[in-house]
Amino acid sequence: MGLTIGVDIGGTKIAAGVVDEDGTILDTRQVATPPTPEGVVEAIADAVTKVGKGTGAEAVGIGAAGYVDDKRATVLFAPNIAWRHEALKDKIEQRVEMSVVVENDANAAAWGEFRFGAGAGHDDVVCITLGTGLGGGIIIGGRLHRGRFGVAGEFGHIRVVPDGLLCGCGSQGCWEQYASGRALVRYARQRAAATPEAAAVLLALGDGTPEGIEGRHVSAAARQGDGVAIDSFRELARWAGAGLADLASLFDPSAFIVGGGVSDEGDLVLDPIRKSFRRWLVGSTNRPHAQVLAAQLGGRAGLVGAADLARQG
Amino acid sequence: MGLTIGVDIGGTKIAAGVVDEDGTILDTRQVATPPTPEGVVEAIADAVTKVGKGTGAEAVGIGAAGYVDDKRATVLFAPNIAWRHEALKDKIEQRVEMSVVVENDANAAAWGEFRFGAGAGHDDVVCITLGTGLGGGIIIGGRLHRGRFGVAGEFGHIRVVPDGLLCGCGSQGCWEQYASGRALVRYARQRAAATPEAAAVLLALGDGTPEGIEGRHVSAAARQGDGVAIDSFRELARWAGAGLADLASLFDPSAFIVGGGVSDEGDLVLDPIRKSFRRWLVGSTNRPHAQVLAAQLGGRAGLVGAADLARQG
Amino acid sequence: MGLTIGVDIGGTKIAAGVVDEDGTILDTRQVATPPTPEGVVEAIADAVTKVGKGTGAEAVGIGAAGYVDDKRATVLFAPNIAWRHEALKDKIEQRVEMSVVVENDANAAAWGEFRFGAGAGHDDVVCITLGTGLGGGIIIGGRLHRGRFGVAGEFGHIRVVPDGLLCGCGSQGCWEQYASGRALVRYARQRAAATPEAAAVLLALGDGTPEGIEGRHVSAAARQGDGVAIDSFRELARWAGAGLADLASLFDPSAFIVGGGVSDEGDLVLDPIRKSFRRWLVGSTNRPHAQVLAAQLGGRAGLVGAADLARQG
Amino acid sequence: MGLTIGVDIGGTKIAAGVVDEDGTILDTRQVATPPTPEGVVEAIADAVTKVGKGTGAEAVGIGAAGYVDDKRATVLFAPNIAWRHEALKDKIEQRVEMSVVVENDANAAAWGEFRFGAGAGHDDVVCITLGTGLGGGIIIGGRLHRGRFGVAGEFGHIRVVPDGLLCGCGSQGCWEQYASGRALVRYARQRAAATPEAAAVLLALGDGTPEGIEGRHVSAAARQGDGVAIDSFRELARWAGAGLADLASLFDPSAFIVGGGVSDEGDLVLDPIRKSFRRWLVGSTNRPHAQVLAAQLGGRAGLVGAADLARQG
Repeated sequence: MGLTIGVDIGGTKIAAGVVDEDGTILDTRQVATPPTPEGVVEAIADAVTKVGKGTGAEAVGIGAAGYVDDKRATVLFAPNIAWRHEALKDKIEQRVEMSVVVENDANAAAWGEFRFGAGAGHDDVVCITLGTGLGGGIIIGGRLHRGRFGVAGEFGHIRVVPDGLLCGCGSQGCWEQYASGRALVRYARQRAAATPEAAAVLLALGDGTPEGIEGRHVSAAARQGDGVAIDSFRELARWAGAGLADLASLFDPSAFIVGGGVSDEGDLVLDPIRKSFRRWLVGSTNRPHAQVLAAQLGGRAGLVGAADLARQG
Repeated sequence: MGLTIGVDIGGTKIAAGVVDEDGTILDTRQVATPPTPEGVVEAIADAVTKVGKGTGAEAVGIGAAGYVDDKRATVLFAPNIAWRHEALKDKIEQRVEMSVVVENDANAAAWGEFRFGAGAGHDDVVCITLGTGLGGGIIIGGRLHRGRFGVAGEFGHIRVVPDGLLCGCGSQGCWEQYASGRALVRYARQRAAATPEAAAVLLALGDGTPEGIEGRHVSAAARQGDGVAIDSFRELARWAGAGLADLASLFDPSAFIVGGGVSDEGDLVLDPIRKSFRRWLVGSTNRPHAQVLAAQLGGRAGLVGAADLARQG
Repeated sequence: MGLTIGVDIGGTKIAAGVVDEDGTILDTRQVATPPTPEGVVEAIADAVTKVGKGTGAEAVGIGAAGYVDDKRATVLFAPNIAWRHEALKDKIEQRVEMSVVVENDANAAAWGEFRFGAGAGHDDVVCITLGTGLGGGIIIGGRLHRGRFGVAGEFGHIRVVPDGLLCGCGSQGCWEQYASGRALVRYARQRAAATPEAAAVLLALGDGTPEGIEGRHVSAAARQGDGVAIDSFRELARWAGAGLADLASLFDPSAFIVGGGVSDEGDLVLDPIRKSFRRWLVGSTNRPHAQVLAAQLGGRAGLVGAADLARQG
Repeated sequence: MGLTIGVDIGGTKIAAGVVDEDGTILDTRQVATPPTPEGVVEAIADAVTKVGKGTGAEAVGIGAAGYVDDKRATVLFAPNIAWRHEALKDKIEQRVEMSVVVENDANAAAWGEFRFGAGAGHDDVVCITLGTGLGGGIIIGGRLHRGRFGVAGEFGHIRVVPDGLLCGCGSQGCWEQYASGRALVRYARQRAAATPEAAAVLLALGDGTPEGIEGRHVSAAARQGDGVAIDSFRELARWAGAGLADLASLFDPSAFIVGGGVSDEGDLVLDPIRKSFRRWLVGSTNRPHAQVLAAQLGGRAGLVGAADLARQG
């Protein structure tokens, strides 16, 4: 199969792109994300049709947030769109006359990195995406591990603190409450609220209040060497690295790939993650260590991965 | 291949058994576990030779505690025997003239349950063994998941309590400190020390002191309906079930199999584990649930599983 | 001094009452709580004037939520009213021509229980109030312990879970997130969301959704023996009792008094609190134990206590 | 009363000293700590008699580890000497013919600092001693707070981590497991075990193994700027400061005094403690802050404090 189409459903826009077998995006179309569940279906079909016209693309891969069933056809539950047991594959296939594969968006991004990004040379890879939340995907023996019911790899919701922070999922102490962009901002705001005099740089970047501090302010301040911002990144890194150590005990991959907006800061955040990973890796002196790598595809990983999963069939 | 030999290396004795392709043990030999690492090698070879004589068995599977490398040949690290990078496969093959496969003992037991025990009808299974410690094994798509370096499935050492109990592995807050036979005894002893008047039954079963309470006393008292013993089982079950919920988020199997001495108590412990599992399963109303099953093979699982892994080659 | 006036500032109404030296309320006036900070001041003065007229009362004690300074004159910070460094004593004295004492409301309630309620016969008492949140007060050697800056006894905000639940105070893991009416409701709702089939009774008492479950539903269901409701009370009691054990290590009182709406359920909640207290009391077999008593004055404690503090001068 | 005698019972030696009313030690005698409980009694009497001869001293204050009853006469329980309900006051009075006061050793040290050390100018002080373990004492309104049963101020055993590290007291998660000299050594050893290459300096100071690292090595390495040693001090300081923030919520003193061997490192450890204290102090922008001061008397605090308590009678 030659070209395929990948779809990335974001909170504000939906992107469809034509991707070749080397993972190169040849063309894309973006449309605003409609407010209704039906609207999103139409918008996906619309973007796919437009970008696919005349390309000969025969298959579509869609990355969607939430639980996707084991047939890669139905979205069981989506956190941001009111989809419940939504037969997305059927609906899109009826509209675009191409075969469709639906995949969890973090799985798609993991697959993209595995195939065309940081995963080169590895067969067993665990990816985590430190975006607003924390997602991930698992590659075992060169294959995406989806689980029996399609809902494996929900890293963000393993419990790392009993009786810990409330999570949007209804549980408490979920990893993404401690290692994610949202967590980073909380760390910075809490410090700014408790010790405003030490957080002058951060407060000045925002509107002067702790609540005005955003993730980009923390990144900017950390790059300037600001102590509170660096402490905030370190706190995030402690939790991220400790969690990777647990994943090593479970999956034993040869590499971890760390992506998402937080990882854009590169070694500023990856080095403390590596340090924490080594600190908490059980039996660290008696076993080979997985590498901790930075993702390479940035925001393209999901679209490229979805397109490639469609090609695999 | 017809018959194969499985070996189980325990703290006090080493058992070798001839196993047919249905997982039935036809004959066994047991020898005391020697105190030296070299002695253990000789004892394994000795037991295998004796039990295998005249059976036509061509392959041996050995279940060993610790890290086994990805070639299933070398024990990288064993917690109880002074093996470090021990070339066990080569040494035994030289002595018994059969092909040898070395496997982590908990992996072997998981495989045994998967093939011949509670795993019937499932392709994706996660087993946990609540023995003195907590071990486990992972079956994905009908295959044992060993990890890139051979050390996957070390469930006992994922961190469930930050800054938690010190573990023999050198880390803190490891799951096996909260969900294992040793944890059960600690729960009972702590309660007996704090509130001896409430623990009269338990104290009477032992020597009258909290330190005299053993696991069999807790089981016996729980079966009689003793409150402190039942509370101790419930505390263990809370941690076990919450951990299974995390494993569901990660692996998404169709079934969990719970084995080990603690699980001998059956629904007395399995029901509260199931309750806790449901309580902490993320997205529980929007996804299919894995079953939580009791192991069926008891102490035979490791030997039978190791023999079968040798058959698979 | 004969009669004094106590004032209780609630979220919906302000109550002023004339109290005699035995702690009996002779007369009360209630007014709705105005929405503005200035309005609250006027309303307090108004209620005091009306109830005091012709009684000969010479002193007023006001219980206010928040930090009250060491001179018992200024509200440094109030959580629910926009008072910051509010000179409440001066403002009320100008309006009512009686001497005024301002006290933290939980301190006033503790003093009320100490003098006229469950504290009879004790000189060293720690009171906790399990209301919507968790407050408290400390009596040492028969005197209210206010601290050097007037802000002692903020029990609700000691950290019992590192990296725990976010608190309205900006910190994390505060005790009141785990032991309070709000916590009780959360426990019940979480259980109802995870295992709706087990929570049928609770769900039926509300509107059928987890969010519809209120504290009174949990109480009603627990009284009927409902398992989920009882489990919710037990979870609260575990945290309450463990916290009292810590307070025993710090203050070593002869009695704890447990008040607030949650304690209205009596031994249903007090017995598991006592059990947890004994379970976690350090050195429990080598030291005298404080009693854990139910408060006796109910919602009157704050008003009566404030009036008595005014009498003490 | 002029001169009094203070006694400090250590694990290896017992010191008795004559102290004047300014807290100056005029003379001391030290004897080795005998192995038997009776031997310790004799040794105390012996040291007191020798040092007191001809001084005119009329009263003796003894600081003893463990629970001392409210009459300051009986040691209810001692952790290191097999004293259970030991009538120490009576036994020593019979032997030395002076009036004797027995006090918890950490209380005595707190009193010493309050009267003659860092507590100058304060009436409400909480002292913590970061020695091998964590002890402390409370001064309220210029008086030592002993609690109703004499066992207040057992700071080391408040629970700061639910299900946390096992403590010698039988409980789990006690503060002294996270903030003490023993904790400091554990932090360093764990880091050295997990990442030996980063801990080369520390390992070289000891015997090359993680277990060979002692507290003095961590101090020496930290003074040289070693990263692992500094990280270890910071981890201790995080826990120490967070605990002081809790004590501020409870006691609201005007000053904390931090003593014990760990505090010998001065601002190396006190500055991060202050930082953590401010980070976790609830309502920090709306209340006066207690100072965090270094102790001034070093190892003399207990003896001097005990002598002064004897003078107070």
